[in-house]
Amino acid sequence: MELQWPARGVLFLLGAVVGPVGDHIHVATLTTSYPDSPIPEIGSSPLWFPLATGLATVLLAELRLRVAPPRTRFGVRHGIGAIAAVLGTYALTGILHGAPMFAVTILIGSLAAVTWAAFGDLAAVWVGLVAAVAGPVTEIVGAAAGTFSYAADADQLAGVAPWLPALYFTFGVAAALLGELSVARDVPEGG
Amino acid sequence: MELQWPARGVLFLLGAVVGPVGDHIHVATLTTSYPDSPIPEIGSSPLWFPLATGLATVLLAELRLRVAPPRTRFGVRHGIGAIAAVLGTYALTGILHGAPMFAVTILIGSLAAVTWAAFGDLAAVWVGLVAAVAGPVTEIVGAAAGTFSYAADADQLAGVAPWLPALYFTFGVAAALLGELSVARDVPEGG
Amino acid sequence: MELQWPARGVLFLLGAVVGPVGDHIHVATLTTSYPDSPIPEIGSSPLWFPLATGLATVLLAELRLRVAPPRTRFGVRHGIGAIAAVLGTYALTGILHGAPMFAVTILIGSLAAVTWAAFGDLAAVWVGLVAAVAGPVTEIVGAAAGTFSYAADADQLAGVAPWLPALYFTFGVAAALLGELSVARDVPEGG
Repeated sequence: MELQWPARGVLFLLGAVVGPVGDHIHVATLTTSYPDSPIPEIGSSPLWFPLATGLATVLLAELRLRVAPPRTRFGVRHGIGAIAAVLGTYALTGILHGAPMFAVTILIGSLAAVTWAAFGDLAAVWVGLVAAVAGPVTEIVGAAAGTFSYAADADQLAGVAPWLPALYFTFGVAAALLGELSVARDVPEGG
Repeated sequence: MELQWPARGVLFLLGAVVGPVGDHIHVATLTTSYPDSPIPEIGSSPLWFPLATGLATVLLAELRLRVAPPRTRFGVRHGIGAIAAVLGTYALTGILHGAPMFAVTILIGSLAAVTWAAFGDLAAVWVGLVAAVAGPVTEIVGAAAGTFSYAADADQLAGVAPWLPALYFTFGVAAALLGELSVARDVPEGG
Repeated sequence: MELQWPARGVLFLLGAVVGPVGDHIHVATLTTSYPDSPIPEIGSSPLWFPLATGLATVLLAELRLRVAPPRTRFGVRHGIGAIAAVLGTYALTGILHGAPMFAVTILIGSLAAVTWAAFGDLAAVWVGLVAAVAGPVTEIVGAAAGTFSYAADADQLAGVAPWLPALYFTFGVAAALLGELSVARDVPEGG
């Protein structure tokens, strides 16, 4: 099963809007920073940032649908809850910049598990793990290349924040649910 | 459908007890303050404060019942969860006084959405929006009149805090659920 | 109904692993401290700490099964959510060390109520209350004896933190659910 193009467009837009909101919080709280650059900005983010978060949302949603059939007992209400869980967790990582890192990492990891318990299934674990590996690895490369940087007290994971895998896991769980919701409309009630 | 007088009394008491607890947190964290006044106090709040939060709880619950029939699958357990969501969010706005305002506003907004996803329906959105407009507008007038004031770093929304609409939205969602619970006892199981 | 020995072992291990993670956060955030001692340490905790949290987990789970029959509609997913709720709340008490105590106590109490609303029943209230009394009383004795101490700004409850009963209540609710899950495997689906 795969997404239709209109659903891909909606998911891309969602990721492209939510991503820069969280990124602005990271920049405003000095959690991350960008070097001076000629690249146009959207909020605090360079133009490529919303493209990346939009594309990642679509890819993770697609991945979910290839791992297992979508569940049909969830609705728009749960989708809104999952998006809010990601954005709230994202905001919290910025607000807690400067707090003891081990404690914050355990808190963000616990919130990732709570989000999964609320919205996820076994397939969402796999999507979450793919996000939790691919996202931080990409950011480690980006930080090493100087494309952006994490604050000196938030870069202990090879140049990125230790809570980053948990934040990406939460993102993956939410994107997986959005993937399911994007096709479940075609499935008969109780199907 | 409307509330019976005993239910109105219980809801008024609930609002009159929970409100001053949150208000005390706002005063203790220097988020808000009251000028010297001859008005008697309950905790940190002037006497009219619990009357206002009690009355608002009743009015929002009434409004919910006029918008749509109450759902019957919720119980006391959910009512306690919703009250705790409001009080916890209220406490968090005080605890995070001084943290970057955009980030806190997004966090409180995300928690409002999570609370709605857990307990709300379409009717609760309307009740929440009424609360999110009427509450802050009333407080803007009160702050302008000098009845109370928000701290200089928490008054960017015409004299009140930018997260105030989200906090009132959460309050509206909880009051709507409490309205449903206050009459659902009369409805047959599964009705 | 009571636990089988393998289930007791798993619950003991769970408590013995999660406990020291939270305790390390309390020590790292200067919320609590241990005097110099010849007792071997696991992380930041003396050797007896994981034994105590492991044993308490088993005893609270046993207690749950003696109070009422286990519910069968919960699964591993909910167990993971409940463990994460305890660990996240534990971490938050450490992260918020130094914030105004009344506000933090109300927040942790609200989170305890939300955790109960998500996972608990009437039997879990009793287990939570036993934990909320027995845990803090034991710690008050331990603090008075100088075995450990809470920071000067977090010892207002007879030498321990005012949010400690709420944290133990959350622990009790989670342990109660884990007790139910540990036997529910033997019960037919829908039983």
